[in-house]
Amino acid sequence: MEDMTAQNTVNRTGLDSCIRERDLVLLWFEKVTYLVEVVAGKEVPIHCGRNLQMSDWIGKEWGSKVIAQHAEGYLLRPTVTDLMMKASRESGIIYPKDAAYLMMKAGVCSGAKVLEIGTGSGSLTTAMASMVAPTGCVWTYDRRMDLPKNAHKNITRASLGEYVVFGQRTAGEEFRETGFDVVTLDIPTPWEEVEVVKRALKTGGRVVSLNPTFNQIEKMAEALEKAGFILIESVELLERPILARPGKTRPVQRMVSHTEFMLFAVKAGEA
Amino acid sequence: MEDMTAQNTVNRTGLDSCIRERDLVLLWFEKVTYLVEVVAGKEVPIHCGRNLQMSDWIGKEWGSKVIAQHAEGYLLRPTVTDLMMKASRESGIIYPKDAAYLMMKAGVCSGAKVLEIGTGSGSLTTAMASMVAPTGCVWTYDRRMDLPKNAHKNITRASLGEYVVFGQRTAGEEFRETGFDVVTLDIPTPWEEVEVVKRALKTGGRVVSLNPTFNQIEKMAEALEKAGFILIESVELLERPILARPGKTRPVQRMVSHTEFMLFAVKAGEA
Amino acid sequence: MEDMTAQNTVNRTGLDSCIRERDLVLLWFEKVTYLVEVVAGKEVPIHCGRNLQMSDWIGKEWGSKVIAQHAEGYLLRPTVTDLMMKASRESGIIYPKDAAYLMMKAGVCSGAKVLEIGTGSGSLTTAMASMVAPTGCVWTYDRRMDLPKNAHKNITRASLGEYVVFGQRTAGEEFRETGFDVVTLDIPTPWEEVEVVKRALKTGGRVVSLNPTFNQIEKMAEALEKAGFILIESVELLERPILARPGKTRPVQRMVSHTEFMLFAVKAGEA
Amino acid sequence: MEDMTAQNTVNRTGLDSCIRERDLVLLWFEKVTYLVEVVAGKEVPIHCGRNLQMSDWIGKEWGSKVIAQHAEGYLLRPTVTDLMMKASRESGIIYPKDAAYLMMKAGVCSGAKVLEIGTGSGSLTTAMASMVAPTGCVWTYDRRMDLPKNAHKNITRASLGEYVVFGQRTAGEEFRETGFDVVTLDIPTPWEEVEVVKRALKTGGRVVSLNPTFNQIEKMAEALEKAGFILIESVELLERPILARPGKTRPVQRMVSHTEFMLFAVKAGEA
Repeated sequence: MEDMTAQNTVNRTGLDSCIRERDLVLLWFEKVTYLVEVVAGKEVPIHCGRNLQMSDWIGKEWGSKVIAQHAEGYLLRPTVTDLMMKASRESGIIYPKDAAYLMMKAGVCSGAKVLEIGTGSGSLTTAMASMVAPTGCVWTYDRRMDLPKNAHKNITRASLGEYVVFGQRTAGEEFRETGFDVVTLDIPTPWEEVEVVKRALKTGGRVVSLNPTFNQIEKMAEALEKAGFILIESVELLERPILARPGKTRPVQRMVSHTEFMLFAVKAGEA
Repeated sequence: MEDMTAQNTVNRTGLDSCIRERDLVLLWFEKVTYLVEVVAGKEVPIHCGRNLQMSDWIGKEWGSKVIAQHAEGYLLRPTVTDLMMKASRESGIIYPKDAAYLMMKAGVCSGAKVLEIGTGSGSLTTAMASMVAPTGCVWTYDRRMDLPKNAHKNITRASLGEYVVFGQRTAGEEFRETGFDVVTLDIPTPWEEVEVVKRALKTGGRVVSLNPTFNQIEKMAEALEKAGFILIESVELLERPILARPGKTRPVQRMVSHTEFMLFAVKAGEA
Repeated sequence: MEDMTAQNTVNRTGLDSCIRERDLVLLWFEKVTYLVEVVAGKEVPIHCGRNLQMSDWIGKEWGSKVIAQHAEGYLLRPTVTDLMMKASRESGIIYPKDAAYLMMKAGVCSGAKVLEIGTGSGSLTTAMASMVAPTGCVWTYDRRMDLPKNAHKNITRASLGEYVVFGQRTAGEEFRETGFDVVTLDIPTPWEEVEVVKRALKTGGRVVSLNPTFNQIEKMAEALEKAGFILIESVELLERPILARPGKTRPVQRMVSHTEFMLFAVKAGEA
Repeated sequence: MEDMTAQNTVNRTGLDSCIRERDLVLLWFEKVTYLVEVVAGKEVPIHCGRNLQMSDWIGKEWGSKVIAQHAEGYLLRPTVTDLMMKASRESGIIYPKDAAYLMMKAGVCSGAKVLEIGTGSGSLTTAMASMVAPTGCVWTYDRRMDLPKNAHKNITRASLGEYVVFGQRTAGEEFRETGFDVVTLDIPTPWEEVEVVKRALKTGGRVVSLNPTFNQIEKMAEALEKAGFILIESVELLERPILARPGKTRPVQRMVSHTEFMLFAVKAGEA
């Protein structure tokens, strides 16, 4: 074994190996999973068992085993997928499959300045904030005043608050902030926002609209084309779990078959 | 419109607005797309037209239009999806849909230390390097000496070379480097690597195996379970393009129906 | 409008227009559906309403409306799909999508002589009996003595009893009857039956195996190839319901994603 | 082994075992397949080999082997699926998966009287004619005079001519024939035909519309609802071929992902 590339930059040790206070922990049992913030002195109430003491967790390795009476659990570092799926929610969420795909295709990356129209429960906000950190930021707007509180709580708990600006805004209202690299829309009538979105986007910036119906993506595609956007593409992703078991591997029998269609476009510039 | 969160961190301007020398540009025409590195004085040969002068591009806004005789093109900032799909390749590639999904679910994030077994054409390497930058790194190994050259070229062109260590290695050989947060395997017999992978992973670290057949994921799932891994899950993603056009919206008629199954697991620790 | 083909055979009036005693009726309400046999003097008990008198139905047109206190229902002629989905069942059923596809591809048609190994609840038996009638027949075998009673009831109720022979049989046992055009297998270890199936089939006859796991179809494909079968093909069908509604058409959000893989083969003859 | 049901009707021998003149034969080779009508004295030209003499085939068992220089072929009885896939075509075809599903769900069965609007290449006509025989019939109409010739040839070759009446007809024109059990529509603007279709259908009769776009099924669903139809349902079927091979079983990599959406409805009667 011989390395083809010698590099002085690789004394890198990766992510922290041990749990610290204020970390979010995915407490995983075979049949139930909790997302909890580690607070010294606090307990996790376990059904039919002795409560777990969080103080015991601090300093332990990620992945450590905990015993709760009859069940074994593990203290796992939550991934972005876990943060999204375990978010407190009052409305539907954007699924990790869709969020991951759209961020890679639309160019949501470290340093990017992103505008999100439709905060909802903040699951996409969480994914995007974690992606643009530490030098980028996400401006997220919602019509309703009440919903973002839930999103705000999810973002804060995930220690992503410093990368997110929350705003309340009426449909069609001009954005004070401009120069966005990417704009995402998760609202029922995205075509009403095309002109203000265009002005808020950098030239060459990308827009993504998430909608459950064909009618919406068709109407949005038409509005984007009229507004001069290019590279208009639409796609849906189907996630099919597979049961991989010795001698009897098969797809699961029921699955989520539809979440959102994703529509992409680019703001064209002049010669 | 009123911002709920006042933050002093958001004088952020996002990504560079203008093209600079050495940038990779996605030169997009309706019918053909090129991924080119901007070099002053160099030309892009256009079929049946006047060659395009790259020097003209430097300093232009991303998204600017270029005219090539009969066709209009645009100078776009390539996203990770573009880098993966336009990679020079001698073997198959990992598709963006799978790479995006697995990175989010397995915890490949900024700062992570990742081990990739099976470099191939480097499309997954590109995606992971761009994700772990600037403080993490990807160690990528391949059995063959010849293939990584292509991968190396793709990575270098994308300016991601400083986040990647290339290595050549025989199957089953112990890894000198350890403490990885995530290990990915894209090789025909991943079960032969389970023990060395386990030693190379941090406790709580995650492993992902990509394989095209059911037999492989079944055998790998069994090997991971025997080695004490937990949270063993498998999934496949189907990407279905939709033609969103006024009055005649429908799915496309032919699609890629199968790329890889993805298998996930976590290295369990002790109490 | 002018007919291109003059034919003396077309004074055909199609199926009976009116309901007769002993017919099976699909009593359809918006929220619940019943499959009932029309017996003069019998009542259909309706939740929270006046019972429906079946005597009133006799002589009525198929499709007639019935009023049950608060709800409107309709008396529909059940199709084979309805018979299969509303069958009394103690075990899983073969879905209409799979039954329809396999019968057309394997050549189950009017006049065919079919062998079914694995009677189960008789849903596939029902579909095949209705297809081979009036000159063909289905021989159906099950290991268990108890199950076919349910199948028997379903077949009889659908007035298909004269096209079906029920048998009880031990795995691997030779079939007394031979010369079958098609053999279907819906059992866990179909490969154990390949030799007896081959002897029971006509040359050029077709075999179909239905199994939920990849392991089973792989093992069966291998056994069929070793036994000299040709045209070995496998397929699965995904049925995705669509909500077609003004202005908000979309796929449903959850669906049955996996039922059975179907494996086809042909018994090759000599030169 | 003991039969639970004794029946005097089962001296049935199934389909003919031997090939006769005028039969359609599926001449199957590993790499190419022909659908040919057996005519004594005629030859089948084989690329790079001695022509095959059809006279040799008459009286042979279905499934017999033929040798064509370097390749072995087989003389197979074509199933309805084969007839549909090997039809001469000038326009698109309805796929077997969709035809089989819709016939079972809409009640196209032996004896039924069916109206087909949009003959096309006659692939659905073939499937339906074979299903309604020998006592039912299919009336099929097309706007164009030229297309049905191809359909006519396909139907005649399959010896199904006596179950089909071909007609030419202008959009919206009233049907002279009425009392149909089932009506299928495979035309771009099916909603323009709802009223004449309703009059042509028996009460309780079923209608199926096949269309490639969402817009069409949405518009048709709305028109059917306005016209008082009930049980309006839409679905699409995805057919995914599986490669079942020892040790390396997987779905194929590219597939047909979209053919037609199917929309079903029932003509409601009065109380």
